[in-house]
Amino acid sequence: MVAPVRLIGIPGSLRKDSFNRKLLRAAQELLPPETSLELFELAGIPPFNEDEETEPPARVRELRSTVRAADAVLFGVPEYNYGVAGVLKNAIDWGSRPRVESCWNGKPVACVSASVGMLGGARAVYQLRQSFVFLNMRPINLPEVFVSFAPQKFDSVGRFTDEAGRKVLASLLAELVQWTRELRGEPAMAP
Amino acid sequence: MVAPVRLIGIPGSLRKDSFNRKLLRAAQELLPPETSLELFELAGIPPFNEDEETEPPARVRELRSTVRAADAVLFGVPEYNYGVAGVLKNAIDWGSRPRVESCWNGKPVACVSASVGMLGGARAVYQLRQSFVFLNMRPINLPEVFVSFAPQKFDSVGRFTDEAGRKVLASLLAELVQWTRELRGEPAMAP
Amino acid sequence: MVAPVRLIGIPGSLRKDSFNRKLLRAAQELLPPETSLELFELAGIPPFNEDEETEPPARVRELRSTVRAADAVLFGVPEYNYGVAGVLKNAIDWGSRPRVESCWNGKPVACVSASVGMLGGARAVYQLRQSFVFLNMRPINLPEVFVSFAPQKFDSVGRFTDEAGRKVLASLLAELVQWTRELRGEPAMAP
Amino acid sequence: MVAPVRLIGIPGSLRKDSFNRKLLRAAQELLPPETSLELFELAGIPPFNEDEETEPPARVRELRSTVRAADAVLFGVPEYNYGVAGVLKNAIDWGSRPRVESCWNGKPVACVSASVGMLGGARAVYQLRQSFVFLNMRPINLPEVFVSFAPQKFDSVGRFTDEAGRKVLASLLAELVQWTRELRGEPAMAP
Repeated sequence: MVAPVRLIGIPGSLRKDSFNRKLLRAAQELLPPETSLELFELAGIPPFNEDEETEPPARVRELRSTVRAADAVLFGVPEYNYGVAGVLKNAIDWGSRPRVESCWNGKPVACVSASVGMLGGARAVYQLRQSFVFLNMRPINLPEVFVSFAPQKFDSVGRFTDEAGRKVLASLLAELVQWTRELRGEPAMAP
Repeated sequence: MVAPVRLIGIPGSLRKDSFNRKLLRAAQELLPPETSLELFELAGIPPFNEDEETEPPARVRELRSTVRAADAVLFGVPEYNYGVAGVLKNAIDWGSRPRVESCWNGKPVACVSASVGMLGGARAVYQLRQSFVFLNMRPINLPEVFVSFAPQKFDSVGRFTDEAGRKVLASLLAELVQWTRELRGEPAMAP
Repeated sequence: MVAPVRLIGIPGSLRKDSFNRKLLRAAQELLPPETSLELFELAGIPPFNEDEETEPPARVRELRSTVRAADAVLFGVPEYNYGVAGVLKNAIDWGSRPRVESCWNGKPVACVSASVGMLGGARAVYQLRQSFVFLNMRPINLPEVFVSFAPQKFDSVGRFTDEAGRKVLASLLAELVQWTRELRGEPAMAP
Repeated sequence: MVAPVRLIGIPGSLRKDSFNRKLLRAAQELLPPETSLELFELAGIPPFNEDEETEPPARVRELRSTVRAADAVLFGVPEYNYGVAGVLKNAIDWGSRPRVESCWNGKPVACVSASVGMLGGARAVYQLRQSFVFLNMRPINLPEVFVSFAPQKFDSVGRFTDEAGRKVLASLLAELVQWTRELRGEPAMAP
């Protein structure tokens, strides 16, 4: 008997056909045992204003409470202009304030990313890793999931069809869940 | 006789008492000859949605046209969570799309930053420099203006009072203007 | 009764009066209980050549075996030219090859840095953190020890005299040791 | 009539069959008019020691004088452990000291990289770009040449055979040469 692990997945794009959202949906099909993955959408999160950090809009309060209730976080990271999509970073900024109440504090975390280019969002993910230091999040190291040339790897109904990529994604999820269990002091599950 | 250089300064924070806005206001007092610096505020720029990139809100259109009309850009860069403030990156994302119309393309650029901590926003600025590669902006190298321990360096009416810092800021502005002239093929001004 | 934790400290500079070596010596005075810290010097490690990775010079073999025998690693990170000192990165490269035998794999790690400038080596440390992802090292998040304006903070016999800095250094060491114990499944020590 | 542009290419690896050296050799076949590209090998450059910076070994003096005589620099950048190869960074460190005599100061620069993995050395190149800020080098922005899955893209005699990659490499060289001419105040060449 093991305690379940509840993941929260956050697609970092507002675009209707976002590859990163589709990638998180693929993750929902590839979960290890005793694991759930819900998605939280960033629509409705306004631009961060520190003057409002203690009385944030309702959707920001929902973000904070949803993340707090999760055991670990899975970001779907769009890369815009060789950096983290402003929309995603903005949501992270909202969740981090006031600092003593940051919803991110101590959470195990992993990132996946997809892009139309050759690097699959890697540049954005390495920037986020730098933020995890201050946020005191606990990222896994490897594997990494960078889906390059994304339009070739999702079919007409939005399914992630790259078989090699699906295997790596499943490995990433297994690693994130094992890491989450390890950090809360549980013994490793038998394979 | 030299042609004037018009700088656009963009404070990357919505906070009323933003140190980065005050730093850009100090820059307005330290300009080299034949140079102007107007500020563009990010209030009213909504979260970026690629689905709306060709029909953006009015404030985004104003951002794009204001930047296009400027000769060079000066960012006031807040560092949140060891990265670029989401609010600023979000505005950059809006301005960059559709790519062939990016308002940032080819612009000379410099960054200044202020923070309450010891590093003065440096981590955020180095991330932005990575974005400048894709945006094809032309950053100056040195000097850099990182105002650390900001609350000690602005007085009760918001004036940047650090004399050493003001000198470096003036040098940065002179370098940005000289770089802008050099890139448009003008001879250097006599000192 | 707790098992001891053996740290290996690696000063990343060959300079006789290296501030980073002095900082690691200060760390030796500030260790938590049941902890040891030995230093390994990089003198004698030649430039890495992948053609020789399986038959490396003797000093490289010593580096590898010393690191393997340690429970965790503490790097003293010189920043040269806004990046990791080549000398330190070169030693890390030697230790990492062949990959299946990498001496760094799985090791808990922390960095300290000192520099003559205002940022205290931060830029170099964030670059190393990116290497830790591939090396599968386990860095602590906070606190960070960046000693800025180093010449003012060491006395004539090389002692790190900055009292605030010494306290943060002691906290970093306590965190590294606690993290090391946590990752090997030990219960936290009573304070 | 235009003045020639002399490029110096520096392969950042000591490995006999280095992909990055082969990539620089391919560049020698793809130069724009009135351009030369010589290679400088890093064999014989010892680990940097600041205590010896004013009386460096002969090979370091050759590096410095060769770079000073060149109009622009082209680095072949190996990525080891998600960062710049220590061997290359070490040579850059030697060339940068003492700072007032840095051989890199003001030089136009571009990077190319090849790796066995999917990202083609991109992580290392972005780190080097951060060093260029302090070194006051003048990097081109785009295009970038990241040769991924390198073993598939060089033939048995070491020729870079990827036709799409060769075209981008030729574009990068043309851009570097044009940028070099622009920075020394020459009019653009007619196409």
